[in-house]
Amino acid sequence: MRRLKAPQRREQLIEVATKLFAKYGYEATTTFKIAEAAGVTEPILYRHFETKQEMFVAIVSAVSEQTLSNWQELIAGESDPAQQIRKIAETFPGHIKQLADAYHVLHGALATSRDKKVLAVMKEHYAQIEGFFIRIIQRGQELGVFRPQLDPKGPAWQLIMTGIGYAMIVLNLQTMEQSLIKNAIESILRGMSIIKV
Amino acid sequence: MRRLKAPQRREQLIEVATKLFAKYGYEATTTFKIAEAAGVTEPILYRHFETKQEMFVAIVSAVSEQTLSNWQELIAGESDPAQQIRKIAETFPGHIKQLADAYHVLHGALATSRDKKVLAVMKEHYAQIEGFFIRIIQRGQELGVFRPQLDPKGPAWQLIMTGIGYAMIVLNLQTMEQSLIKNAIESILRGMSIIKV
Repeated sequence: MRRLKAPQRREQLIEVATKLFAKYGYEATTTFKIAEAAGVTEPILYRHFETKQEMFVAIVSAVSEQTLSNWQELIAGESDPAQQIRKIAETFPGHIKQLADAYHVLHGALATSRDKKVLAVMKEHYAQIEGFFIRIIQRGQELGVFRPQLDPKGPAWQLIMTGIGYAMIVLNLQTMEQSLIKNAIESILRGMSIIKV
Repeated sequence: MRRLKAPQRREQLIEVATKLFAKYGYEATTTFKIAEAAGVTEPILYRHFETKQEMFVAIVSAVSEQTLSNWQELIAGESDPAQQIRKIAETFPGHIKQLADAYHVLHGALATSRDKKVLAVMKEHYAQIEGFFIRIIQRGQELGVFRPQLDPKGPAWQLIMTGIGYAMIVLNLQTMEQSLIKNAIESILRGMSIIKV
């Protein structure tokens, strides 16, 4: 058993659990299998996570945090709100590819789980993303580039629905031409803009 | 054991399998459990479906057929292509609610399955829907209401991605204001239209 400090061990266990959930599904993966694959005993795993559900919650929280901090960094150097949304869209295929295992776990749980805690953490995930887009859109309204009478929730959810649909297809089924996602984003931006973008 | 004729028995087995797959997941549901819930023996089930996979393929085919025939009927009385798309969007919440179990099975498989036959039948499902929307959009182009230089694949996939995202959220997570889906559809229609709709 490799000796790791507590935070690293926790991180390693989340990584291993993400891979196993993605490969075999949440239901079929036991804490015994996760401990085994991580090279530790179950009691060691339980020091970090009392239940499998807690591991799932930690995975979703990690994806949320990573997504939002990636995006925050991405838009920091860009002042035009429309360009900020374009940048997120352009890097989205790479973003979901990098987090493919975690997104498999997320979407699998979304499509199949009835566990209230699991669904609560998923709701929080989308609420975070909704808030992120709403802030960009409101800034665009203040700057006078997006229509002021627009409810920012509308385009925020257009972006979220499109993103879920895109990820479901691309991660699981088939590639999609980059032009299709670009077309979708430009259409959403046109819908928001005062000036033709 | 209730005596049913072959086609009715087949239909009943698909109904029972859909409910069990939706409730317990595809992996966790055995043909034994399906036969038991349908009130037949496994050998009787095997007369209709050689494998569980075959049942899954039958479910997806049934959803595809039902979706397309519902939509075909819905748009038959409507000559304006934009109105045809609006009608489909307006009835979509009811449509997915009515087929909720089947969509749980579809999206669960899309998010978690690595089975090539399962994924092939899913690809075919989306190809059918893509074709359906492309025909509406091309008709709109011929009629001169949608922009002729537009590749119909673009808005067709916008509609599909939005539909998947909407269904994933609404079937599994939380309700969504009707205005949010309406807003998304109007935005897609504006993007296609020559005249302001």
